[in-house]
Amino acid sequence: MKDRAQSVIATCRRIAEMSEEPGRTTRRFLTPPVRDVHEFLRTRMESLGMSARMDAAGNLRGLWVPTGALGKRLIVGSHIDSVPNAGAFDGVLGVALALEWVELAQELKLPFPIEVIAFSEEEGVRFGVPFIGSRAVAGRFDAALLALKDADGITLADAIRAFELDPSKIGEAALDDHVLGFVEMHIEQGPVLEAESLSVAAVTAIAGQSRLKFSFQGHANHVGTTPMNLRRDALAAAAEWIVAVEAKAESTAGLVATVGKIDAEPNAANVIAGSVSLSLDVRHADDGARRAAVDLLVARAQAIADKRGVTLDWAQQVDQPAVPMDEHLTADLTNAMLAARMPDKRMTSGAGHDAMVIAASVPAAMLFVRSPGGISHHPSETVREEDVAAALHVARIFLDRLAARFG
Amino acid sequence: MKDRAQSVIATCRRIAEMSEEPGRTTRRFLTPPVRDVHEFLRTRMESLGMSARMDAAGNLRGLWVPTGALGKRLIVGSHIDSVPNAGAFDGVLGVALALEWVELAQELKLPFPIEVIAFSEEEGVRFGVPFIGSRAVAGRFDAALLALKDADGITLADAIRAFELDPSKIGEAALDDHVLGFVEMHIEQGPVLEAESLSVAAVTAIAGQSRLKFSFQGHANHVGTTPMNLRRDALAAAAEWIVAVEAKAESTAGLVATVGKIDAEPNAANVIAGSVSLSLDVRHADDGARRAAVDLLVARAQAIADKRGVTLDWAQQVDQPAVPMDEHLTADLTNAMLAARMPDKRMTSGAGHDAMVIAASVPAAMLFVRSPGGISHHPSETVREEDVAAALHVARIFLDRLAARFG
Repeated sequence: MKDRAQSVIATCRRIAEMSEEPGRTTRRFLTPPVRDVHEFLRTRMESLGMSARMDAAGNLRGLWVPTGALGKRLIVGSHIDSVPNAGAFDGVLGVALALEWVELAQELKLPFPIEVIAFSEEEGVRFGVPFIGSRAVAGRFDAALLALKDADGITLADAIRAFELDPSKIGEAALDDHVLGFVEMHIEQGPVLEAESLSVAAVTAIAGQSRLKFSFQGHANHVGTTPMNLRRDALAAAAEWIVAVEAKAESTAGLVATVGKIDAEPNAANVIAGSVSLSLDVRHADDGARRAAVDLLVARAQAIADKRGVTLDWAQQVDQPAVPMDEHLTADLTNAMLAARMPDKRMTSGAGHDAMVIAASVPAAMLFVRSPGGISHHPSETVREEDVAAALHVARIFLDRLAARFG
Repeated sequence: MKDRAQSVIATCRRIAEMSEEPGRTTRRFLTPPVRDVHEFLRTRMESLGMSARMDAAGNLRGLWVPTGALGKRLIVGSHIDSVPNAGAFDGVLGVALALEWVELAQELKLPFPIEVIAFSEEEGVRFGVPFIGSRAVAGRFDAALLALKDADGITLADAIRAFELDPSKIGEAALDDHVLGFVEMHIEQGPVLEAESLSVAAVTAIAGQSRLKFSFQGHANHVGTTPMNLRRDALAAAAEWIVAVEAKAESTAGLVATVGKIDAEPNAANVIAGSVSLSLDVRHADDGARRAAVDLLVARAQAIADKRGVTLDWAQQVDQPAVPMDEHLTADLTNAMLAARMPDKRMTSGAGHDAMVIAASVPAAMLFVRSPGGISHHPSETVREEDVAAALHVARIFLDRLAARFG
């Protein structure tokens, strides 16, 4: 698998050069370099004997149908859009690997078709809403999204038309019933596999997410003339609460909770902070555990505010349930890992992925590939050749066994 | 003293109308409204039989010399510059009260002269350096300051010339040896007297001040994909330290310690903070206690950083020693308070004042007047008539007893 892994990495590096900006990788939804990626992938697909087409959401879809194929098809893929100044592997690795799956399927003479999807939009950069490509494929695209505007005032509908596609036909992008399931391979974008010296993991669920906004309102006073006992220091209140957020997450298995954003007013060295605004992000694979943590942290913030004579305002901005991956497909992945003499590592994804959206329509599974340094959304994002080879090794066993089950 | 107090407050309100900006009080060093204030004060001084002159630093100085005066003079005063969008009483109250002292001295037939000084610059707004007026009077004006530029690129030397004064003569503004002492009355600018339901307090010392800058450098990572045990969260480190800063100050008598400024990077809800910069301001009347607290808080920051695998940078920006007020003059003030049937409240000033600078040359004392709500540097800054009357009551007894001592 070493040569294949090298080829996959080379493909990702080559696609990274297709960018809106010279010298760095930025490839937003339906921008000119997306045409170059499509052209490149279409050529690869056709050389593999696949038929390629684009759906009205801009997803490139290649279908390989073996001679005498019976039954449903397996779908494999990930996204080809990127964040600004991105790395080469987020999304694209899953597409490059998916094309290798077709080659593996041909070698193994698999009896079922494989559809490779290069999703057009996952990052949410251009229109502020993520998963536009997978929403269409899952049959969950809300036509109201067509009115979204990008930074230049171009609507989503117009951007689709400018790409010579017909927004009224997005409904036709939805999957039919002839699908075995969906598998997405993606870089982990976190440090877990590296910390455990593992190449790959099966994803058991995409964690649910809560996002909230908090504001402590105290009283701005002179730092020199206001004794400690007469202060209502919004930043001291916020700090006490941030410590509590971290302690709650550290004491709850599988929970991550983060205050990443803080803004103090007037934010001057010689004035006690009069008000402090903070973000809270809480994620867990179990929605009950996540919501219980949020409730506790809201109560904790209120108790801290009350004790200090400070007022608290808070609002929930996101409450997105966890999405479990398909048990059978996930077990197929972990069994393949064992057969390949790797630990059957399972983990939760703390980030959203196309598989989360597709899971609403068909059985879905994900395989994570180790992210060196846990780095993603950055030019230094990378993958190790041995890990890509491991993913292909697992894939080969997985496909072979799937053929035995569905052939 | 009620009529006198009303008159003093009316004077402050009238001077507040002399401003660089219509509708709000902004009166920076040597700006046009300063001429109006000088004209107003000069007229008052001359009506009291005082001789008025301006020194080369722009301080207006009025001298009352009683018939047959012997010995040294008492100096009374405060500043007439203001912060932008100021209240009516910071500084100006001390000048308006000083003129009442001359009237009291005349009624009491005091045997020694009184010089009233309206200091030209205390707030440091125009040239970024405070106490320009009192530095000159204390004989501690560094000629290098003349090269300072304001926001319009005008040097201090040119600003003095534009006011028809000669910067080369600033040395002549220095006090001679014929001075009994200096007394400044000023609003407290804090909540202590209000919390204790007191009108006035004698200031025992201007607190020393440490100002430091801290920076915790962790690692920016995805909030969803980075488990708690693999984080190096700069904001969590900063929060733990802010809590420690507050705890140290609360457990140390007379200490105030404040983190007022915090800046996180990248400061996004979905990214663990990679770096956080913070200010630390520490004040205490005892320099040893202040420096010990700073040392402890630096060590605490380092221990928190080490424990978390985060790096710490810090730098000291200010280390200004405490300035004790003159023991004898301060005792004269508190004895006068007792004679006026008020508690002999003594307190430290957490803010700097002209008296801090003048104390380097002559015995200096300060009397604080209650600040309702602890508010200053804000249009809602005010004083209560009864507190101004109390200050005048104390002044009359103080002057009478001083005459017995120095007459």
